[in-house]
Amino acid sequence: MLDKILNARSVAIIGASKNPTKRGYQAIKTLLEDGYEGKIFPVNPREDSVLGIPCYDSITSIDQEVDLALITTPAKTIPALLKECGEKKVAGAVIVAGGFRELGTEGKALEALVVETAKESGVRIIGPNTSGMINMKSNMNLVGIKNAPRGGIALICQSGNMALTLITEAMIRKHEGFTYYIGVGNEADIKFHEYLEFLRNDPETKSILMYVEGMSQGRKFLQQAYETTKKKPIVLLKSGRSATGKRSAGSHTGSLAGMSEVANAAYGRAGITVIENSDELFPVAQTLSSQPSIKNNQVAILADGGGHATIGADLLSDYGIGLPELSETTRAKLRAILPAAASVVNPVDVAGGTDSNPAIFADCANIILKDPNVGGLLIVGLFGGYGIRFAESLAIPEEDAAHRIGKMVKQKNKPIVVHSLYSSYNSHPIELLRYYNIPVHDSLDITCKCIASLCQYGDYLKSYHAKTNFVFNWGFRAKKAGNDIIEKAKSQGRKVLLEHEAKQLLKLHGASTSADKVALSEDQAVEMANQMNGAVVLKIVSPDILHKSDAGGVKINLKTEGQIRIAYNEIMLNAKNYNPDADIIGILVTPMANSGLEVIVGTKIDDQFGPVIMYGLGGIMVEIMKDVTFWVLPISPTSARKMIGETRSSVILDGIRGQKGYDKKALKRILLLCSELIESYPEIQEMDLNPVILHHEGLDIVDARIILK
Amino acid sequence: MLDKILNARSVAIIGASKNPTKRGYQAIKTLLEDGYEGKIFPVNPREDSVLGIPCYDSITSIDQEVDLALITTPAKTIPALLKECGEKKVAGAVIVAGGFRELGTEGKALEALVVETAKESGVRIIGPNTSGMINMKSNMNLVGIKNAPRGGIALICQSGNMALTLITEAMIRKHEGFTYYIGVGNEADIKFHEYLEFLRNDPETKSILMYVEGMSQGRKFLQQAYETTKKKPIVLLKSGRSATGKRSAGSHTGSLAGMSEVANAAYGRAGITVIENSDELFPVAQTLSSQPSIKNNQVAILADGGGHATIGADLLSDYGIGLPELSETTRAKLRAILPAAASVVNPVDVAGGTDSNPAIFADCANIILKDPNVGGLLIVGLFGGYGIRFAESLAIPEEDAAHRIGKMVKQKNKPIVVHSLYSSYNSHPIELLRYYNIPVHDSLDITCKCIASLCQYGDYLKSYHAKTNFVFNWGFRAKKAGNDIIEKAKSQGRKVLLEHEAKQLLKLHGASTSADKVALSEDQAVEMANQMNGAVVLKIVSPDILHKSDAGGVKINLKTEGQIRIAYNEIMLNAKNYNPDADIIGILVTPMANSGLEVIVGTKIDDQFGPVIMYGLGGIMVEIMKDVTFWVLPISPTSARKMIGETRSSVILDGIRGQKGYDKKALKRILLLCSELIESYPEIQEMDLNPVILHHEGLDIVDARIILK
Repeated sequence: MLDKILNARSVAIIGASKNPTKRGYQAIKTLLEDGYEGKIFPVNPREDSVLGIPCYDSITSIDQEVDLALITTPAKTIPALLKECGEKKVAGAVIVAGGFRELGTEGKALEALVVETAKESGVRIIGPNTSGMINMKSNMNLVGIKNAPRGGIALICQSGNMALTLITEAMIRKHEGFTYYIGVGNEADIKFHEYLEFLRNDPETKSILMYVEGMSQGRKFLQQAYETTKKKPIVLLKSGRSATGKRSAGSHTGSLAGMSEVANAAYGRAGITVIENSDELFPVAQTLSSQPSIKNNQVAILADGGGHATIGADLLSDYGIGLPELSETTRAKLRAILPAAASVVNPVDVAGGTDSNPAIFADCANIILKDPNVGGLLIVGLFGGYGIRFAESLAIPEEDAAHRIGKMVKQKNKPIVVHSLYSSYNSHPIELLRYYNIPVHDSLDITCKCIASLCQYGDYLKSYHAKTNFVFNWGFRAKKAGNDIIEKAKSQGRKVLLEHEAKQLLKLHGASTSADKVALSEDQAVEMANQMNGAVVLKIVSPDILHKSDAGGVKINLKTEGQIRIAYNEIMLNAKNYNPDADIIGILVTPMANSGLEVIVGTKIDDQFGPVIMYGLGGIMVEIMKDVTFWVLPISPTSARKMIGETRSSVILDGIRGQKGYDKKALKRILLLCSELIESYPEIQEMDLNPVILHHEGLDIVDARIILK
Repeated sequence: MLDKILNARSVAIIGASKNPTKRGYQAIKTLLEDGYEGKIFPVNPREDSVLGIPCYDSITSIDQEVDLALITTPAKTIPALLKECGEKKVAGAVIVAGGFRELGTEGKALEALVVETAKESGVRIIGPNTSGMINMKSNMNLVGIKNAPRGGIALICQSGNMALTLITEAMIRKHEGFTYYIGVGNEADIKFHEYLEFLRNDPETKSILMYVEGMSQGRKFLQQAYETTKKKPIVLLKSGRSATGKRSAGSHTGSLAGMSEVANAAYGRAGITVIENSDELFPVAQTLSSQPSIKNNQVAILADGGGHATIGADLLSDYGIGLPELSETTRAKLRAILPAAASVVNPVDVAGGTDSNPAIFADCANIILKDPNVGGLLIVGLFGGYGIRFAESLAIPEEDAAHRIGKMVKQKNKPIVVHSLYSSYNSHPIELLRYYNIPVHDSLDITCKCIASLCQYGDYLKSYHAKTNFVFNWGFRAKKAGNDIIEKAKSQGRKVLLEHEAKQLLKLHGASTSADKVALSEDQAVEMANQMNGAVVLKIVSPDILHKSDAGGVKINLKTEGQIRIAYNEIMLNAKNYNPDADIIGILVTPMANSGLEVIVGTKIDDQFGPVIMYGLGGIMVEIMKDVTFWVLPISPTSARKMIGETRSSVILDGIRGQKGYDKKALKRILLLCSELIESYPEIQEMDLNPVILHHEGLDIVDARIILK
């Protein structure tokens, strides 16, 4: 279906016009100028013809097959037009008009009507509120952006301005272009993941570049992304990070920008290269399209002068990329061809050795790439300057060097990325490098980001196959008992499980929660405490008191009968003062947990990606250090291990400075258990295990909260 | 002196040559081509003339006054030539040759000889190992970089390549240029701070742009920087952050790159704008040269399309800049001139309102800048596109809008920075904006960084005058007693004060350390503990055991006589096992500190900046969260307050989530006390108070270590 739309062999322009300021005129003009290979059918009952092509009164009156309609008329006209498209068996419609979801309640209702009508009519929609789409292969330009270059990048974009920026950039840089541009607009019908699936199977598309403000079906998108990044890279700029950014995105496409930590974690784990700096978007996509990835995160720098090498080394190091030592063989070979002042450690500095002989650059690159420690090469500085600032007689030898460098990537299957001050001069040596698809930039920062993206993608491709699911195989009885707990709460009109209910539910599935009991009287509390070894904690149990500590409803470290009796009465009194109308069920008696390391485990339903899990350092540090990590559920044992490993505090779990470590195995099990719990109980909206106290062996879930949908 | 060198009215080229590949030829050619206003004296005993100018046998044989010598001959020839320069009373010499400090021991010795000879001869040196210098006012180009534009930026640069990059960038962007370029090279004689002092007083220099790999006299530089940034901005790119970067910088100019946290903190506090991304260096310098700073950290965005506005809002928010709500008046005025689809909240989106009338852009800017909440304006998107992509008839009205926008900056004394996709097309409206010194970039990231630098500089200018010193006025007796402690340690050949000595020294000056006593026997330990209230701690006292815990030399929370006796004997045994030859002085008895928040305070001597102080969260978190901050000593009460405030953990000190806060006043006092201690006792190399336990009232210095020089 999408094939017929995105590769349409005939387009009807509904709203065709003779007025040159109208979109219905410009669209036909662009198709004619660009030489669209398919048929064009202008539709407008009040015109005879537009630009020499006869006009039809309506789409149904066209006597040939129509694959796609471009509708340029206002929002309110759309539903009726879609019905006609359905009658005509048009596969899809590009709806340009704004005035839908992004304008609030009324617009939302109109958008819903449009989607419903489309569904009934069997017509798929691109947009609405889109700048359009371009198929570069057939020159089907339904946008009006001129001179977009053809190449291997597919562009999916939620902002017309951003598309214009990126296409202009490609035009200026010249050395890479596009297969498709798709303006998704409000994403009302065809979703991001559907475009992705189509582009994955398009042989001309080498990489996919996306600008996303917010998406409605994040989980499906991640699945498609996961399948896609195995075959070709996806580079994505996510906007709407800030509260203010969200406000602006909100009024722009009316989509809800999800919590950015969740989104970035989710994208990254599906192998997507996430970019935060829009300047890097196109260069990174072009690099990933054309260069082999770096398998070992180790990069060598080749420079002709110290300053750029120093900054390059700094930047790569900021990205966590290693600058390996070169082997003795490599260094000896370099020493043999370079002047005495040169540096043959990594970064290699030819120190003017190329001033009279540019071939040395290619010789060095060849020697360095042969070193088994080196996964990729960054050339920085002044390559390409002959004929501009230096003796013109050296321009030809430098072109030879460019030829040789250009061919090395395929020979060695290792990438080369070039920073040159002369990049924008488009000198012949630079153009030659580009002919061989080697990225050349005059920004050192962008060049290093390109290298970093090759390392990151290489790492991902090595590890993605480890993604397998994990199943606890809980028995029917446990699930039945768990459902009973949830049903009971629901029957009482509660959306929150009481602490002991939540812990019970966890315990049913094998979590080591404390042996809680609910006392209904002071005497009973004392009796229960006697059955527990050591100190106890008393906590209020009431569906009307969620923040137990704030209400003075928690007393800890109670050792004697006297202490327990006093605590019982004080809690009751505090609870009544806090909320006189609270329904008090009793008081929870639980053994005082041994001290250990406090961590937090939680789940929530993300607007874009559905169930996600969070893990991190607990206690007061959660809020300050924000040392937490997110993962989209379900997770595998490998993912659970990675989650634990990627917090800064994981070194404490391993045992820092000779201290004993904590039970990571038990923690991993709890993460997996939460993952499966959320899948087994779709009624659960949010779950908070906070704190979980980790011990050197085992752990205690000291408090648990489960909120239902 | 520097005036005579940097504004030299006559230059001798020592090593003048007829060979066009030699620097001694190129230098004279460049001076002639650029039209140097002063006199040129080629010096070479083997030539009669170079490029038509008669050659002298030696500098002493020149019969006129010579201000500056450019020496292009090899390293080993320099000392003898400097002597001749001295005889001729030349003010300074630019030494191009490499082969000094950067080549190791031998080169270092030669450099020392050069510096000594220069001093004896009364000649100041730029370099050695420098690409040279340029004075744009007199066209004294001693570098050979062609077509450098003249303007208001002075460039001080420690890498010839970086200078070439920056000057090329200025050339391409056209709208700002230079007063001076100074290649400092190895900084062997004239130091960074001397150049800074000169440039501060140069009326044509509007801002100073620096690339620093490492500097030898950081403290003097900071003093000069502090004086300079009150008058004009300094923008600095510091390289050598990474270990690898350091290796490269090390082999480049042989200078020691200091710990980057210290350097960045120090630079920032002297009002310097520190840049990490080299692409931003020139645009930020140009912005700070030309635009008024932002006083309230509040910025409005004006856009013609949502995508760029969203990303812009994200970026500003990442920099901590506020996007204020616009006043009701402002919104009403905007609503009156904009189409219905426009957004009149901040970011303001004209939503195509300018497509037919570019004047609206200037109208909106005028309305927004009148809003008292708005400190500056960021225009993003498509300004300047008429005549390129849109109807050419609108090019003239857009030029009018550019004129109006250009004049607003002076009228309102608020800055405007423009992002435009058409920036590199140099269309007429864009060129007009630049004529008015308004920064225009096609990178949204760089545009936002420019705005951020205006906010940061504005903040700094508001607060710098608060910098006053603080003096404890310790009595003579305290200092005498403190010196006695230090002298005693030195007389015993120790470089480390024992814990109780360090605490005593602190206590002498008013710090609240615990009441420590050193017991020489088991019985004495028991007796001392009895005089203290509550539990005690025993610690080994030995100059040969620095890591007391590792040696099993610390026992805490001892409550009974029996516990104290056991602990005493165990510590003695452990100490002997740990180091049988250790000289054991006794066992420290100290009250067990109440629990509280552990922080760390320390001082050290930084290679570049001298004494610095560190403060941060203590305990296991120091190493993991690295929540620490540095300041160059001495500090004022304001600085101490800021130090405490800029750690992430400062919210704990304020009292988080209803918990009681900690005694920040006592902490501030300890920071100031350390500052003055380091000034009063120059023998102290390093000091560690770790941990300091903060209480809701007061604090305890639980362990202290002082290392002498």
